[in-house]
Amino acid sequence: MKIKVTVWNEFRHEREEGKPKEIYPEGIHMAIKAFLDSTGEFEVKTATLDEPEHGLTDEVLDNTDVLIWWAHKAHNEVQDDVVEKVHKKVLKGMGLIVLHSGHHSKIFKKLMGTSCNLKWREANDNERLWVTDPAHPIVEGIGEYIELENEEMYGEFFDIPAPDALVFIGWFKGGEVFRSGCCFNRGYGRIFYFQPGHETYPTYYNKDIQKVIINAAKWANPTKKIDRLIAPNIKEPLEKT
Amino acid sequence: MKIKVTVWNEFRHEREEGKPKEIYPEGIHMAIKAFLDSTGEFEVKTATLDEPEHGLTDEVLDNTDVLIWWAHKAHNEVQDDVVEKVHKKVLKGMGLIVLHSGHHSKIFKKLMGTSCNLKWREANDNERLWVTDPAHPIVEGIGEYIELENEEMYGEFFDIPAPDALVFIGWFKGGEVFRSGCCFNRGYGRIFYFQPGHETYPTYYNKDIQKVIINAAKWANPTKKIDRLIAPNIKEPLEKT
Amino acid sequence: MKIKVTVWNEFRHEREEGKPKEIYPEGIHMAIKAFLDSTGEFEVKTATLDEPEHGLTDEVLDNTDVLIWWAHKAHNEVQDDVVEKVHKKVLKGMGLIVLHSGHHSKIFKKLMGTSCNLKWREANDNERLWVTDPAHPIVEGIGEYIELENEEMYGEFFDIPAPDALVFIGWFKGGEVFRSGCCFNRGYGRIFYFQPGHETYPTYYNKDIQKVIINAAKWANPTKKIDRLIAPNIKEPLEKT
Amino acid sequence: MKIKVTVWNEFRHEREEGKPKEIYPEGIHMAIKAFLDSTGEFEVKTATLDEPEHGLTDEVLDNTDVLIWWAHKAHNEVQDDVVEKVHKKVLKGMGLIVLHSGHHSKIFKKLMGTSCNLKWREANDNERLWVTDPAHPIVEGIGEYIELENEEMYGEFFDIPAPDALVFIGWFKGGEVFRSGCCFNRGYGRIFYFQPGHETYPTYYNKDIQKVIINAAKWANPTKKIDRLIAPNIKEPLEKT
Repeated sequence: MKIKVTVWNEFRHEREEGKPKEIYPEGIHMAIKAFLDSTGEFEVKTATLDEPEHGLTDEVLDNTDVLIWWAHKAHNEVQDDVVEKVHKKVLKGMGLIVLHSGHHSKIFKKLMGTSCNLKWREANDNERLWVTDPAHPIVEGIGEYIELENEEMYGEFFDIPAPDALVFIGWFKGGEVFRSGCCFNRGYGRIFYFQPGHETYPTYYNKDIQKVIINAAKWANPTKKIDRLIAPNIKEPLEKT
Repeated sequence: MKIKVTVWNEFRHEREEGKPKEIYPEGIHMAIKAFLDSTGEFEVKTATLDEPEHGLTDEVLDNTDVLIWWAHKAHNEVQDDVVEKVHKKVLKGMGLIVLHSGHHSKIFKKLMGTSCNLKWREANDNERLWVTDPAHPIVEGIGEYIELENEEMYGEFFDIPAPDALVFIGWFKGGEVFRSGCCFNRGYGRIFYFQPGHETYPTYYNKDIQKVIINAAKWANPTKKIDRLIAPNIKEPLEKT
Repeated sequence: MKIKVTVWNEFRHEREEGKPKEIYPEGIHMAIKAFLDSTGEFEVKTATLDEPEHGLTDEVLDNTDVLIWWAHKAHNEVQDDVVEKVHKKVLKGMGLIVLHSGHHSKIFKKLMGTSCNLKWREANDNERLWVTDPAHPIVEGIGEYIELENEEMYGEFFDIPAPDALVFIGWFKGGEVFRSGCCFNRGYGRIFYFQPGHETYPTYYNKDIQKVIINAAKWANPTKKIDRLIAPNIKEPLEKT
Repeated sequence: MKIKVTVWNEFRHEREEGKPKEIYPEGIHMAIKAFLDSTGEFEVKTATLDEPEHGLTDEVLDNTDVLIWWAHKAHNEVQDDVVEKVHKKVLKGMGLIVLHSGHHSKIFKKLMGTSCNLKWREANDNERLWVTDPAHPIVEGIGEYIELENEEMYGEFFDIPAPDALVFIGWFKGGEVFRSGCCFNRGYGRIFYFQPGHETYPTYYNKDIQKVIINAAKWANPTKKIDRLIAPNIKEPLEKT
């Protein structure tokens, strides 16, 4: 059975004239959908900020195993009730992959409980993503590191809880490092934050980056989803006698 | 220099007739203040829900190294802007000790990012708190376990992120277990969740429980506090050449 | 492709007259082999202490994806060079499932780096194994807890490194708790320690216990195996320019 | 009361003609002793490989709260029984700080359970040590990063268990990253691995590096030491009735 993935994209940059539109004429979400589709292992839908309910209706969310989230400059336009719904879905088991500037999205900050602040610089830094957990399913098929000719620099201190698994550490030519691939378990949900993917670089066409996102979508696919969060009050002791 | 502790209490149960009032006539906060005071190592203030701004004005928070939080039935009456302020303070370095039913407080849920749900039963269970990290500063002076004749049962699954250190696991006579003493690092703040302390039992008069809270207040005392959360944009590469 | 599992058993208790022989007439390894075989997903071999090289020749190890280890009273008879070989295999990717009294095996202690000491008592305690990570693949198909009418008590403090995932906490009627299901990542290998399985109880006929071991064997199946441990000296900087 | 620190050094490089001798004429151990002494908070002794029992007699170890370990080219000359004794001491509570090439010492590998392999290159790389846990006591008084003009490159993948706290990530000009400051809890002992300190660079004269080692010695100072490792068999259930 195919894993149901919904790729959510802010989709603002790519509708204005400029680099992002040149690189991703149909939007970042369509580029991600394309490589996921090509594997034949996913049933991929997309949703964007300017659709009603941001495209994340109950029906869409009920039919999503793994949600991918790209956003940058309009985090505050995401309605709180949609964030609330996505949050509950993650705790009930839906996987979540947060890409690049999604670190400052409402949903990621709500799940982390911290500011998720970081250092950054737009300067065409060369980045090298080093694998620090080589047996993790997310790096299956990846070598010792991934090379990106140009990326936006994201640097430490990254204000997140210590990840449950640290899969990548990024090296930037300008002198910084970053915990670039981080796994978090929250409730029944599995979350992967992955740093690369600035809108002015063709990062999502890189085969290794694609492979990581494909692997992450499989890893985040829930083993179990639950219907409601409320834990029952146990009135009687479990003890038999 | 003394550690500045503010003990925050909902202080509703103890103002009605009944067990809590009998056990804690001046309120749980005053019982906690008393044993902290007796060490001579803390400067202790208290604050309660029904004071203006819940007693947590900027001045109070600016003068708090470690905040202790007890609450039970009025979590929803805590104003969101106060929760927001306390949250920021923790990320900037203020220590936080969350007691018992405080697991469902707005501030704890906001810091954890999960539902913090658990199982529970009021049945005078006997509890035994086993030490699972015997070299942790929080259990200095504590033996292999702490015995409580009666406690409210709190049971797994406890929906929290995996703690950064697991210090106690609770055993309940009725057949359950619980991650009863959990350390979390969030931002610059150190958080300790400690399960015992139901309002109908004299738990906070137990010498071992007092010792744990005293140790936790020292452990959570910040090594460093920061003034603002915003990370600077670095415009120039750090690289010298 | 089937996962290649080798079930290693000390196989001493079951060859003497007594309870273990009555319960496991062909040995614990054969009982484990039987339920693994019944799934059709594994290619299962067995090996025992008194075979030459303890049945763990290079050929056997080269054809093992996941090794299961049960042992109790003859840990010291396991030859150091075999332990050395198994250790290297785990670091190169072979999965390892250590059962019950295997906590004191040479291989487990070597991988943990600690004494792996614990408390214990043979007293037909009733045990309840509570799930503390309900979305973990190892507990797929398992309810909130597993009930065992009788087990040997294993109690905290259990001297292990903090596990990378804590999947079960055991409750014992006599008053103790135990970190009963623990995942560890070491090198490229995935290790699962699972506490139940004293030789005088029919634990390995329990359907839930079988399900956990089946799940664990899939979880520990390596995504990647490496040929040699030696990391290369990099003489030239990776930097292009 | 002063913390009793023993600085152990292989002390071979510095007795031959060459860079190490020029930089550390009395040995690396004496350079470390000097800055620890200057704080007035430690009682510092030294011990070296070529002394009888490598200078680590029972009396010395019984009077050591924190052991610091520098070694490089003679790991195999350290006697196994001394390693065994140090290992037991750590599990009983003695702190251990392992410096630089000590990653391949017998004692560190025994405590980690992994190969502790890494990448390396001697090429006068510029290193920047980024703080990834800014509220950790080990980085008290340290800024966002420590700059080292020259260090030997140590690179990922570093084959260690996931650390209990990751305090520093190193950036190397040549293109690599490294988990350079790692805390591990083993038994009652606290262990800190700190990567800088190649014998051909004056790293241990750097004020920030000194500050980190001073902080680490305080952090690793045991809250509790135990006399013996053996856990008692509990014959009677703890339950009262």
